[in-house]
Amino acid sequence: MKKIEHIGIAVKNLEEAARTYEVLMQEKPYKEEAVESEGVSTLFFKSGESKIELLAATSEDSPIAKYIAKKGEGIHHIAFAVDDIYAEITRLEEEGYQLINKEPKHGADNKLIAFLHPKSNHGVLVELCQERD
Amino acid sequence: MKKIEHIGIAVKNLEEAARTYEVLMQEKPYKEEAVESEGVSTLFFKSGESKIELLAATSEDSPIAKYIAKKGEGIHHIAFAVDDIYAEITRLEEEGYQLINKEPKHGADNKLIAFLHPKSNHGVLVELCQERD
Repeated sequence: MKKIEHIGIAVKNLEEAARTYEVLMQEKPYKEEAVESEGVSTLFFKSGESKIELLAATSEDSPIAKYIAKKGEGIHHIAFAVDDIYAEITRLEEEGYQLINKEPKHGADNKLIAFLHPKSNHGVLVELCQERD
Repeated sequence: MKKIEHIGIAVKNLEEAARTYEVLMQEKPYKEEAVESEGVSTLFFKSGESKIELLAATSEDSPIAKYIAKKGEGIHHIAFAVDDIYAEITRLEEEGYQLINKEPKHGADNKLIAFLHPKSNHGVLVELCQERD
């Protein structure tokens, strides 16, 4: 794990949350991107070498809609940058971690991503995240 | 907000969680510290320019014990590094943010800290964090 790539925050309304985080962080989001396969709209802010990713559901069966229905708005996941996501998946599986994605998939912000189950990380949904070429 | 200073993770058992995060992050914690005023034991891992802080309650009335009783283990807060915590508190109060601490207090890892209420940040407990001289 090279660094915290981003923190994902589940919000109900992307525009409203964007205004809050613009004031908090004193900067504008640098990117807005929809990830249709996940049913989410995302908005990214820079914070040092990391990012804050706001996530809002675009459909009722989106994981973010389900998360908010169950737990309310809040921190959804931590993403760590890795050099080789395939090697990390193999390593963590061998260590007994439960992977939600055993094969990396395409995520927002030009990344290959895979999630580890919160059960394996004391309640924390962890995303592995590799820059795509 | 200069960068993500750390992510705080509420756990039941510090030693058990430490083993999990050692495997995940492939490194040892660099510091263990009790904050008696908060009723917590903390353990820090480096991750790039940021840190992962594991937090376990040392008393039943600790905020971490209450958090886990209500929500279970998981991500508890995001801390942002600031240069001048007094100026940030004033700025955010003027912007209408609800501060849990209007006066900075001493936190772990040689910091002055103040928390913003999750209500002001779409469910996210935000900590402001300034290095002490």
